[in-house]
Amino acid sequence: MTDPSHSELPILAILGGTGKEGPGLALRWAKVGYRVIVGSRQLEKAQATATELNALLGTETIRGLENTAATREAEICVLTVVQAAHLPALESLKDVLPGKILVDTTARVDFRDPRPPAPPSAARQAQDILGPQVRVVAAFQNVPAHALKKNLGGSLDSEVLVCADDLPAALAVIDLATAAGMRAHYAGNLDNAVVVEGLTAILISLNKQYAVKTAAIHVTGISPQGETASPNGETANNPEGNPT
Amino acid sequence: MTDPSHSELPILAILGGTGKEGPGLALRWAKVGYRVIVGSRQLEKAQATATELNALLGTETIRGLENTAATREAEICVLTVVQAAHLPALESLKDVLPGKILVDTTARVDFRDPRPPAPPSAARQAQDILGPQVRVVAAFQNVPAHALKKNLGGSLDSEVLVCADDLPAALAVIDLATAAGMRAHYAGNLDNAVVVEGLTAILISLNKQYAVKTAAIHVTGISPQGETASPNGETANNPEGNPT
Repeated sequence: MTDPSHSELPILAILGGTGKEGPGLALRWAKVGYRVIVGSRQLEKAQATATELNALLGTETIRGLENTAATREAEICVLTVVQAAHLPALESLKDVLPGKILVDTTARVDFRDPRPPAPPSAARQAQDILGPQVRVVAAFQNVPAHALKKNLGGSLDSEVLVCADDLPAALAVIDLATAAGMRAHYAGNLDNAVVVEGLTAILISLNKQYAVKTAAIHVTGISPQGETASPNGETANNPEGNPT
Repeated sequence: MTDPSHSELPILAILGGTGKEGPGLALRWAKVGYRVIVGSRQLEKAQATATELNALLGTETIRGLENTAATREAEICVLTVVQAAHLPALESLKDVLPGKILVDTTARVDFRDPRPPAPPSAARQAQDILGPQVRVVAAFQNVPAHALKKNLGGSLDSEVLVCADDLPAALAVIDLATAAGMRAHYAGNLDNAVVVEGLTAILISLNKQYAVKTAAIHVTGISPQGETASPNGETANNPEGNPT
């Protein structure tokens, strides 16, 4: 990973990155050249996960740090903690997040008793706690953890609905999703993220009813050419080349 | 429309059927042989719309009746009133709906200020008002009215997420959606319908951001063969034949 262009990519911290979702995202971004820091409340767990992921990739670029230190070193932080840790994690990182983009992946849906959550969205709650110095972006709530770890260089069937009040921050996260092999779309402000959280309940119902584990939601009809026009008018990558 | 098989199809009432959504649904179902009644609070408006729709189809099978009379004659009632009329319409029809399926198409999203609605879903509210003698099914919340009226015999890009506590009632509505040219999927109980309502806000955001009017949501990955397995294990129609 000595390609000099990679040094222009933002440094990423995956906070709570030793759980189910974090390692798969870390692997996909590290594989395409991002400098990735795995964060955890416990330094030793973070380092153990980093070592494990480096071994899988045959690299040494992934580092493990305590969440606060990881946040300080990163430009974009991706919060992948479990639902119960969401608000405590935000409170504990509030002082080190100003100036950064926080990607909130939280979907407040219990897999054993799936029900759509009520507004405000988890990401709107995050924005309210963190204040305007942090640009919060909601994304990746519906990506299945098991799929992230498979076929690392390949594309995923999951599409990502990205919600943010700040459009440039949303575009930065659309780039991240694209780099990780997912089509992503800007889907409005942080209030809309409650719908994306709730889609988790819909996907659980579809998987159960159709006896699969692969139900996914795709967006169609946003460009007559079958290419995804990005919100700034340019043409975004379409990793699957699908004429959807 | 003298095909004897058609007499086995359920009689449909489109309540509030003189508005934006109702006429397009009425046309599509009448075209494939359903006996359709357009309902309105005003008999004259219902009859005028029925006359207009019959003229478009070159038939005389669509009738116009006051909402209560329409409900009495139908087996499946489809409520397509505007948001503000949703709860009043349910109260006024409460006494005539027992024994029937009520399809609730309400999405409580204001197009000028789109925000995701809070639980309970409009359809859950309907079920609570109507009681267990009425089988409420939430469907068609995201189907654009303008698309319904075009290319009547053809398929629509919109897919329908059908939510109900009663699976046989949901399957009956999946059949109706299929007959009208839409792929439809069973997406869980009535609580999940709040997410489907909220998708309207997501679709408005996507249309605005990508400068189109055609954003739609598709479900993928519910069958490895690319055919939609229906919840009862049979293979449902895939009107577009898409290998999605």
